[in-house]
Amino acid sequence: MSKVFVDVGMSLDGFIAGPNGGTKNPLGDDGLKIHNWMFKQKAFLSHLKMEGGETNNKDNDIIEETFNRFGANIMGKNMFVEGEATWPEEAPFHCLVYVLTHEKREPLIRPGGTTFYFTDEDIHTVLQKAKDSAGEKDVRISGGAKTVQQYLNAGLVDEFIIHIAPIFMDAGVRLFEHLDKTKFSFKINKVIDSPEVTHLFYSVKDN
Amino acid sequence: MSKVFVDVGMSLDGFIAGPNGGTKNPLGDDGLKIHNWMFKQKAFLSHLKMEGGETNNKDNDIIEETFNRFGANIMGKNMFVEGEATWPEEAPFHCLVYVLTHEKREPLIRPGGTTFYFTDEDIHTVLQKAKDSAGEKDVRISGGAKTVQQYLNAGLVDEFIIHIAPIFMDAGVRLFEHLDKTKFSFKINKVIDSPEVTHLFYSVKDN
Repeated sequence: MSKVFVDVGMSLDGFIAGPNGGTKNPLGDDGLKIHNWMFKQKAFLSHLKMEGGETNNKDNDIIEETFNRFGANIMGKNMFVEGEATWPEEAPFHCLVYVLTHEKREPLIRPGGTTFYFTDEDIHTVLQKAKDSAGEKDVRISGGAKTVQQYLNAGLVDEFIIHIAPIFMDAGVRLFEHLDKTKFSFKINKVIDSPEVTHLFYSVKDN
Repeated sequence: MSKVFVDVGMSLDGFIAGPNGGTKNPLGDDGLKIHNWMFKQKAFLSHLKMEGGETNNKDNDIIEETFNRFGANIMGKNMFVEGEATWPEEAPFHCLVYVLTHEKREPLIRPGGTTFYFTDEDIHTVLQKAKDSAGEKDVRISGGAKTVQQYLNAGLVDEFIIHIAPIFMDAGVRLFEHLDKTKFSFKINKVIDSPEVTHLFYSVKDN
């Protein structure tokens, strides 16, 4: 059955972006460093239509598996605005992306199969639409932090994957705050370690 | 050569204790849950002179290895005050423990080889004394958060072990804040996964 998952990179001190983020400073000060392990992998670069990159390692395999499993994405407005300014023309989704925003806007079609839908419907309704779009594939809650928190607190997430980089941000956007811990529990599914990042796979139970 | 290490349990959202901690509420609201995996292991219980507990698993082995490696401890005043009220008479250290405090107090000798020394010397001097006491064994920076942060920011830590429990506190004492990330870097040494906790072993480099 189709699953709803979060897949996110985090610093060891709990940040998914640095301070002062925006269209001219994607992921904020030092925020790109959280994903250094990813930027060097072929599976990531090829989705941006870029050449090169490493293969035959666990990090590359994990990225490939993640890209292959989702059939729709949901993201918050801030993530979209920052991404719109920085993704290449062929945005790295290749499926429908639902953007949670009060802004009225026509769907945005990008080459390579990515269409952004802008919606101010409630998160349950948006998730149902994303599931319908995804078919047998999974739905990824892409971010940012507020969107992840909303879906967690609503008990709507099935799996949570965190890639912890051994770096410190000391400021920025925290992944885990404003949580209602009575609403859900995490259980360790598996852990994959590699030299520059630790991949933690949790299953999430609605309490 | 003798090493300086931190060994600490943390919730997935970055807390090492809950809110409202004190002598009557050790580790704060829900804080003991961070260590649930540990409380059921024989290696831990036997150091408190308690019977029972699980054996033959990775968690138990890790606890045993940690107890065997340190020859001295350093801790902050708050940790000591809370511990003094809650440790059994035979406190689980069995070596010298340096307590960073401005309070003048005679050394406190507990049965089983634990002696607490109270000192207001600077952290470098205290570390040197702890190293001298430990001999060929390692020195553990036991906590709390401020003491760990002080030693990290001074570039005095060699290894950092974090046991991440898949739980959320949402409030309490954060491990990683007030850090000067220019002073040190973490490198993944090894990761040991088990069903209820993930053990992350980092080496720390003074920048």
